[in-house]
Amino acid sequence: MLNRNIETFLACDCDYNDADIVLFGAPFDSTTSFRPGTRFGSSAIRHESFGLESYSPYQDKDLLDKNIFDSGDLELSFGITENALADIEERTETILNDKKIPFMIGGEHLVTLGAFRAVSKKYEDVHIIHFDAHADLRNDYLGAELSHACVIRRCWDIIGDGKIYQFGIRSGDREEFRWGSEHITTNKFNFDTLEEVVKKLKGKPIYFTVDLDVLDPSVFPGTGTPEAGGVDFDTLRKAVTLVCSNCNIVGCDVNELSPHYDQSGASTAVACKIVREMLLAIK
Amino acid sequence: MLNRNIETFLACDCDYNDADIVLFGAPFDSTTSFRPGTRFGSSAIRHESFGLESYSPYQDKDLLDKNIFDSGDLELSFGITENALADIEERTETILNDKKIPFMIGGEHLVTLGAFRAVSKKYEDVHIIHFDAHADLRNDYLGAELSHACVIRRCWDIIGDGKIYQFGIRSGDREEFRWGSEHITTNKFNFDTLEEVVKKLKGKPIYFTVDLDVLDPSVFPGTGTPEAGGVDFDTLRKAVTLVCSNCNIVGCDVNELSPHYDQSGASTAVACKIVREMLLAIK
Amino acid sequence: MLNRNIETFLACDCDYNDADIVLFGAPFDSTTSFRPGTRFGSSAIRHESFGLESYSPYQDKDLLDKNIFDSGDLELSFGITENALADIEERTETILNDKKIPFMIGGEHLVTLGAFRAVSKKYEDVHIIHFDAHADLRNDYLGAELSHACVIRRCWDIIGDGKIYQFGIRSGDREEFRWGSEHITTNKFNFDTLEEVVKKLKGKPIYFTVDLDVLDPSVFPGTGTPEAGGVDFDTLRKAVTLVCSNCNIVGCDVNELSPHYDQSGASTAVACKIVREMLLAIK
Amino acid sequence: MLNRNIETFLACDCDYNDADIVLFGAPFDSTTSFRPGTRFGSSAIRHESFGLESYSPYQDKDLLDKNIFDSGDLELSFGITENALADIEERTETILNDKKIPFMIGGEHLVTLGAFRAVSKKYEDVHIIHFDAHADLRNDYLGAELSHACVIRRCWDIIGDGKIYQFGIRSGDREEFRWGSEHITTNKFNFDTLEEVVKKLKGKPIYFTVDLDVLDPSVFPGTGTPEAGGVDFDTLRKAVTLVCSNCNIVGCDVNELSPHYDQSGASTAVACKIVREMLLAIK
Amino acid sequence: MLNRNIETFLACDCDYNDADIVLFGAPFDSTTSFRPGTRFGSSAIRHESFGLESYSPYQDKDLLDKNIFDSGDLELSFGITENALADIEERTETILNDKKIPFMIGGEHLVTLGAFRAVSKKYEDVHIIHFDAHADLRNDYLGAELSHACVIRRCWDIIGDGKIYQFGIRSGDREEFRWGSEHITTNKFNFDTLEEVVKKLKGKPIYFTVDLDVLDPSVFPGTGTPEAGGVDFDTLRKAVTLVCSNCNIVGCDVNELSPHYDQSGASTAVACKIVREMLLAIK
Amino acid sequence: MLNRNIETFLACDCDYNDADIVLFGAPFDSTTSFRPGTRFGSSAIRHESFGLESYSPYQDKDLLDKNIFDSGDLELSFGITENALADIEERTETILNDKKIPFMIGGEHLVTLGAFRAVSKKYEDVHIIHFDAHADLRNDYLGAELSHACVIRRCWDIIGDGKIYQFGIRSGDREEFRWGSEHITTNKFNFDTLEEVVKKLKGKPIYFTVDLDVLDPSVFPGTGTPEAGGVDFDTLRKAVTLVCSNCNIVGCDVNELSPHYDQSGASTAVACKIVREMLLAIK
Repeated sequence: MLNRNIETFLACDCDYNDADIVLFGAPFDSTTSFRPGTRFGSSAIRHESFGLESYSPYQDKDLLDKNIFDSGDLELSFGITENALADIEERTETILNDKKIPFMIGGEHLVTLGAFRAVSKKYEDVHIIHFDAHADLRNDYLGAELSHACVIRRCWDIIGDGKIYQFGIRSGDREEFRWGSEHITTNKFNFDTLEEVVKKLKGKPIYFTVDLDVLDPSVFPGTGTPEAGGVDFDTLRKAVTLVCSNCNIVGCDVNELSPHYDQSGASTAVACKIVREMLLAIK
Repeated sequence: MLNRNIETFLACDCDYNDADIVLFGAPFDSTTSFRPGTRFGSSAIRHESFGLESYSPYQDKDLLDKNIFDSGDLELSFGITENALADIEERTETILNDKKIPFMIGGEHLVTLGAFRAVSKKYEDVHIIHFDAHADLRNDYLGAELSHACVIRRCWDIIGDGKIYQFGIRSGDREEFRWGSEHITTNKFNFDTLEEVVKKLKGKPIYFTVDLDVLDPSVFPGTGTPEAGGVDFDTLRKAVTLVCSNCNIVGCDVNELSPHYDQSGASTAVACKIVREMLLAIK
Repeated sequence: MLNRNIETFLACDCDYNDADIVLFGAPFDSTTSFRPGTRFGSSAIRHESFGLESYSPYQDKDLLDKNIFDSGDLELSFGITENALADIEERTETILNDKKIPFMIGGEHLVTLGAFRAVSKKYEDVHIIHFDAHADLRNDYLGAELSHACVIRRCWDIIGDGKIYQFGIRSGDREEFRWGSEHITTNKFNFDTLEEVVKKLKGKPIYFTVDLDVLDPSVFPGTGTPEAGGVDFDTLRKAVTLVCSNCNIVGCDVNELSPHYDQSGASTAVACKIVREMLLAIK
Repeated sequence: MLNRNIETFLACDCDYNDADIVLFGAPFDSTTSFRPGTRFGSSAIRHESFGLESYSPYQDKDLLDKNIFDSGDLELSFGITENALADIEERTETILNDKKIPFMIGGEHLVTLGAFRAVSKKYEDVHIIHFDAHADLRNDYLGAELSHACVIRRCWDIIGDGKIYQFGIRSGDREEFRWGSEHITTNKFNFDTLEEVVKKLKGKPIYFTVDLDVLDPSVFPGTGTPEAGGVDFDTLRKAVTLVCSNCNIVGCDVNELSPHYDQSGASTAVACKIVREMLLAIK
Repeated sequence: MLNRNIETFLACDCDYNDADIVLFGAPFDSTTSFRPGTRFGSSAIRHESFGLESYSPYQDKDLLDKNIFDSGDLELSFGITENALADIEERTETILNDKKIPFMIGGEHLVTLGAFRAVSKKYEDVHIIHFDAHADLRNDYLGAELSHACVIRRCWDIIGDGKIYQFGIRSGDREEFRWGSEHITTNKFNFDTLEEVVKKLKGKPIYFTVDLDVLDPSVFPGTGTPEAGGVDFDTLRKAVTLVCSNCNIVGCDVNELSPHYDQSGASTAVACKIVREMLLAIK
Repeated sequence: MLNRNIETFLACDCDYNDADIVLFGAPFDSTTSFRPGTRFGSSAIRHESFGLESYSPYQDKDLLDKNIFDSGDLELSFGITENALADIEERTETILNDKKIPFMIGGEHLVTLGAFRAVSKKYEDVHIIHFDAHADLRNDYLGAELSHACVIRRCWDIIGDGKIYQFGIRSGDREEFRWGSEHITTNKFNFDTLEEVVKKLKGKPIYFTVDLDVLDPSVFPGTGTPEAGGVDFDTLRKAVTLVCSNCNIVGCDVNELSPHYDQSGASTAVACKIVREMLLAIK
């Protein structure tokens, strides 16, 4: 008797009950203002992960030794943002209730809000570490409050001042930078203060959200809004490893791969490797 | 003193007050379920129209002899469908109130609903002629009633039975075809009954909506959901000319060009020529 | 508890034991001489099938009413042709032994040989209906007897004269056409004699192999060796429906989609629809 | 001792002295107004010709039986149009003086002027058969008289009224069509009168120029200015075969392939096959 | 009453009379010898600028506070180089006469000659700062003296020895480097001496020409002749800011974006950001 | 009398008898497991080399002063790996016997085995310097021992322990790294120990094999398996120059360019420049 066709991220095929980490995709990009396409990100990452090795020479660890379950992509409604966020929140809650770590793959950055709502209900003192090119601190964008350009502001609505740490930010309007300086902590352009922040947040529950456009477009052209001036792969690899291996990660996401914009596949391959390194580093 | 940079569809540059037809773009694709990108359609058509001649050897007419004004693209909110439709409705109303014919370029097919709301308020007895590969008659799609897959159903909500004529339909679920057979008139696959319908509707106000995916994907691969088995260019050219030159067009649209999916530019060039032929044929 | 990520061709998700037809992919292209890439064909077809409806207005049938199981892609060794063929033969045998119809999706055309070996062992009197642009009748190609350019010749080695019927052939070297005229039946360029052949083969076990490059490159540019002068979609759709609904199909395949060569996705969409129409027509 | 790397069009490798036909490329596109890139046409055709068979089942002829020499691409100066035309004229003259038929591959259509200058000096009574989507009859284009859009007008300057026969024309400004109706013979849209014209020109020296954009963009998207509404491959194949096998061809060219605009390679493959059929048909 | 469709570079929409800087595009690439396409550069930059923010966190400045006018693209004749240069010179002169700074966007690098002719007539002591991968110092290229490969040599014809400073040069023939060492100042590979040169030229009128291929192709693949070994974005960003904020810029240009060669759009986004940073830095 | 069309790598056109170095292409990729296409590498490098200058400002040397012969691409059988390797070995032997240095351009990395077999027969004490992202040390891959993923292991079969030096390795399975640590010398991630190794191997016959995917995918996306975290162009340029100018190179190859995956052409341009720098540095 033959088996059904099961497709997972590379080596993420343990039994659900044994899993420590649960992957899921959130293929949503309805609020993307410039160039859509991140809806294809999660399935591209899953599909192309087989070009990777399960072993990382950086960490000398192997996915074969980890217990990770890939529950596939959510089927999200395009055009009704609140419904999509509710579905993401529900999936995240299920995973949290089963005492596993939710690892979401976007989609546009707004999907973070759905997952964070669930996480913040469970972990009252949760803090956010946020890697991105864009501040995402607008109060609204062309009239919409549920927009990728507002997602961190919406998270702030939930947890308030002093709990959000941004890194790599190199784009935003004047007001976002001004507002940010009063309510959150922004490390512009790079990760210079990351080590210090990681130390400071030791033990606290952390939601870690990685917008891959923090990378330079030379490394990662496959995204909706390429922002020149980002970091290179090794810098990001070290930064995510630092966070995942030292913080108490209670949920995380990787988002904003828009695979069709990079027909070489290099952007998808970069995303896969960042996901692998994070999966290997999370304790 | 130098001029600002004005960009219009080829030769559509008369004074607004003199215009008989007013073009505008509706760059919206938030409800697109399969592959987004029609938001780039209207600006691509405007930009690439300069590869065309203003003269049509088919009709022996020239855009230089017509009075057409191009008012550019609306700035629509992604992620809040109702707001986008309201903005489209308002623009259409303005044009209708100035006694001109609105000619909208999409965007996904849902934009038709915004324009049609305005037209149906002004013209009580309006009928719809609809060219498409897809029936677009679902009541909802993944829970959303405002979806490109439901747009003709939503128009039916406004004008009811017996006033909608579809042509070229070759895709839909079983229920759509069943429902359609009771409430509207569907000419599957081709335009065989078009001439007869045009005669029958003589003099009545017509809203004409052209989903370009009625074309075969060989002719028009640049669209979100390519459906094999469509018509060729000459068939569509003749059909739009028949409708525009014989019907009392009170509003129309051309939609579903997703230019990035066809990097040859041929799909955009096809769209430009259909728009030219329609502009030349409308009386 | 969450489910694993299962991916199948649209609506092909019944239990294996209930299935009448079993799909599997054969992602192999090692002998491709001109442009490789058909290894990506089967997974592209599975992935993009969700852009289709399960209902066909052509046949007024719905995949939801069929019992089809998708067993996913074989993991084939690149560079050792015999091993790959043996793996395909084994999978086909399993399906045949379970009294189901194997429906293989390539890969390059050579994969047909693996499946046909299994079918010919079970059905002594099997005949082949072959749609293709290329005769594939060489005895060897650059020294290799196991080459896509020789696949029908290798099938002939098994069943001999008078049992192979080719349609649509428009390319080959002089010797292939000469040899073919003595050993098999070739309908060059089109399907003019198909109806007659179908009648003649009534009741006989038929292996049906469809090389999608029988289509014109305007319809199907996503293939390794585009051959101008092929048939259009409707011609092929009618031809496969005729064969599948009137013949005793004991095995079949659809091959030579090389999806990356058509970045519009139209070729993959065409392949999906041909597969759907075949699945619906097979009794 | 090893050989140098010689690259020719498929099977066009006889000794120069034995050749009946001499191929050469004219990679020039400096006057192209819309989208450049035809400079890559001739080398793409040469390179990709190896995807073809040398045998044509249409004509039952084989390039292996012909004597054809490929002299490669000219090295033309971009930006100085007159120099490029002079180099083309010189190459054509050499071939004519050696009593061989020059077969040029463009490049943009203006290159025809260089070759035709040489041909018209040798054959006083030469007539032109011209296949194209565009009339190319402007007297000047944005001030330039040496422009692709004026090339047939420039040929007319040399041979005058009544000697030019156009087919397939579906684009031009109003004035071009008016002027053409007085000075040359234009068969708009198709080849309906071709057979009759071929009969009428029996025995006369013919320069045959094929702008491949006479094909529909579905068949041939790889060109600078795709014009919807063209002919299909089989129509063009029959037409070029008719001309080449019945007329006294004293020179010919095939132009306007811009291979990069069609990343599937189908346009280049079409061009290769048209060249093959012409080479086989020329007596 | 509706407005015409006006398209400008992001936030460059003040009244002409109030403008300090006037943008214009020079879409010309007729002398490009390797791969054409820079003609699409200026309109791509204008169109995609809306993916940027008007605010720069690098300089803490905002385009909303500047007075810049975008006069659109010139309509240049392809194939007659002198005419194109004359049109560019005329536009530049108009802007200079109105006491504004001309900021040209190419186009191939030869367009610099047109603008520089106008600038050098007005500013007798003008010096050139030139960023590029290529020396552009040939006396002629394939016989043409008006070629992109000769543009700086042609500028030297006007102003003579000691007034041209090149940076980033990493390609040229042996003779160009030899000649350059006698007549101008070349900083190979990088910007090591830029600060010193900027100090030395303090107060002098400077024409600043930026060939974007000075960037590494990883950052900027969208150009005709990608030259490995260039600088990264931050290096160029700092260098242009240094020049624009410290020199007396009397005219400048940014050229050689060929947007179609980078389908990710990252190259265009890089070009937009360099333009923004220059506009913000010019006093 | 006209010349045949000869195409060589830039300026590699001396007489065979005078040549010190002989280039040849090995267009083979049948064992590629992830994404094929390196078969197009050698012809792309030859074709695009004309975008380069023959002069290197890095080394102040010019190909015009070197004696190099380009013997074109081998015609290799796809699907029979041993035959392809035998053909490569034979060509290499011919060149070695004529006392010239073979310089092979791949193709996938397995082609190295064919060339190395010939070299190792002639030079008993040959050592290997190997630049790569991947260890290529598997004993077999999916059952195949002749696979790109095993090529260095196969070379080790011939020469044994202590003679292979790898640099830049950042991917492999756990077992490859373990095995490698016992039998060969691996410098992970970078070239830190290269200078020392070059000194140590002074005078010994060296086979130098460069898998271009040692470069970061930002620099070189045009390859089958992009591995984030590689070196930049300048690092590789310096490293190959160091090896070629200081070692006793008796054979070398550059492989794994898959040009179609990078439609900007930047990857091919990078490959061309690495080849040029190596050709110039080899003594």
